[in-house]
Amino acid sequence: MVKMPLGEQTLYIGIDGGGTKCRASIMTEDLQVLGTGVGGPANPFHGVQQAKDSIRTAAELALIDAGLPPATMGQLIAGAGLAGVNVPSLYDVMSDWQHPFKQMFLTTDLHIACLGAHNRDEGAVMIAGTGSCGYSYVNNASLFLGGHGFPIGDKGSGAWMGLEAIQAVLLDSDNLGPATMLSHSISHFLQAEGVMIVDKMFGAKSSDYAKFAIFVVDAADAGDEVAISIVKEGAAYMSAVARRLWATQPGRMSIIGGLAPRLIPWMDKDMADNLSPALYQPEFGAVYFAKQQSKR
Amino acid sequence: MVKMPLGEQTLYIGIDGGGTKCRASIMTEDLQVLGTGVGGPANPFHGVQQAKDSIRTAAELALIDAGLPPATMGQLIAGAGLAGVNVPSLYDVMSDWQHPFKQMFLTTDLHIACLGAHNRDEGAVMIAGTGSCGYSYVNNASLFLGGHGFPIGDKGSGAWMGLEAIQAVLLDSDNLGPATMLSHSISHFLQAEGVMIVDKMFGAKSSDYAKFAIFVVDAADAGDEVAISIVKEGAAYMSAVARRLWATQPGRMSIIGGLAPRLIPWMDKDMADNLSPALYQPEFGAVYFAKQQSKR
Repeated sequence: MVKMPLGEQTLYIGIDGGGTKCRASIMTEDLQVLGTGVGGPANPFHGVQQAKDSIRTAAELALIDAGLPPATMGQLIAGAGLAGVNVPSLYDVMSDWQHPFKQMFLTTDLHIACLGAHNRDEGAVMIAGTGSCGYSYVNNASLFLGGHGFPIGDKGSGAWMGLEAIQAVLLDSDNLGPATMLSHSISHFLQAEGVMIVDKMFGAKSSDYAKFAIFVVDAADAGDEVAISIVKEGAAYMSAVARRLWATQPGRMSIIGGLAPRLIPWMDKDMADNLSPALYQPEFGAVYFAKQQSKR
Repeated sequence: MVKMPLGEQTLYIGIDGGGTKCRASIMTEDLQVLGTGVGGPANPFHGVQQAKDSIRTAAELALIDAGLPPATMGQLIAGAGLAGVNVPSLYDVMSDWQHPFKQMFLTTDLHIACLGAHNRDEGAVMIAGTGSCGYSYVNNASLFLGGHGFPIGDKGSGAWMGLEAIQAVLLDSDNLGPATMLSHSISHFLQAEGVMIVDKMFGAKSSDYAKFAIFVVDAADAGDEVAISIVKEGAAYMSAVARRLWATQPGRMSIIGGLAPRLIPWMDKDMADNLSPALYQPEFGAVYFAKQQSKR
């Protein structure tokens, strides 16, 4: 096999922008990863400028990791899958961005996750990370479920779980709800109790709430009734999402995101049994998308 | 009775600052109302500058209503009860304000509501408006319940009810939750359906969510199961708050706020039966407080 020198190849950058962090990987046309960078939150619903900054940071770090000069930025063909751009006004705002790449093809984080998970156009994918959602693409028809963002949607997600946990802790501190070990773990984490927790949560974002999710799943595994009730409600929602996705006959279905491994054991068994491992990370799906779009 | 000319009297201004609006009334020492003004939201948790602006606007409008010159502002002794200042950092921020009054005595909206409702120091009061909370003051001991703010607390409030309603409408639109007439009423109000609702709710505050509460109580009264479940959960919380307040033996207990008349029929009957009407509005409680403090 004769390898083309890098300078003559078309280079791609796959961008996976979620509510907590943004990952970007620079790849060759044959999907060899040259370098990866991580930036901050990139869901424009929670801050358009921050999303742009996080994408740029992740791309700059990926260039450094790849040992490529900064000027290479302008030669990259970007595929970007961002949380939040299922909302039309946010799609428009991010599309209008004077981005630093040669070209940028924008879609949802769900779409690139699906393309990556199955390494083909058709499939279904659920995300259980800071946010939650479901997506299937079958016979040229796509189905979006959830992904409505914090606090109005995203049941079963880390942010939703964290908000439920804080609500339960405050009810406990007022003696208006059952005692829960979450009061200990979250008070210790925040170094605050009772009404001082309110103070600490002032201006908190979804990514801040999502930090409590690990305490919830740990407490549920340890038998805490309040935590079990939260995790069961979240897992029941994800099971319902899975059921609707599976009905579209996607062939393959995956669940990804930081919370996924902890949620699966609480999901309906028949749906958990339908899950297949994701084949590639979403950044590969993003490059898959960029290649597809740039060759149209 | 010989009346003193206004110019020689001490004038007070009672300020009741909530999450949706701020009411201010200028009163004589013997509680004759000279004028009233209404400003915007005044819960510093949702914006310190806005709270200050709303208080100033309400005071200016009260002066105009009273037919007093603008310069009278600097002679007023203010009693201000604000939502949110149960959070220590917000109490400090608002206390440090270079306010336009001669003096300002700051306390919580709960405290002035309680003083006004019972026209004496001891009693218990619950608020069910944009936010929710409970307060009792008995034997020099005060008990605060709830009032933790949106979205981590304030169960049973208008904002909480509105958030529950939007979540239910989005579950309905994804066919992941039961059908509800809230989908029709809220979609009509917002002129949006499904994911476009997410767009409309972008950056929504507690006062925006609280606008949906009327649809929830109306739908509950009409027999909608989803709405009934929301209202029952909210009323059960307020009943539990009432039960803890009543245990402090406050003698009198009231519930005030825009949602109160619609919640009472859903509360536990024994607690609903313990409720007495509020005697005076919170602004009178604020002046009661200012007189008490300025004569110490």
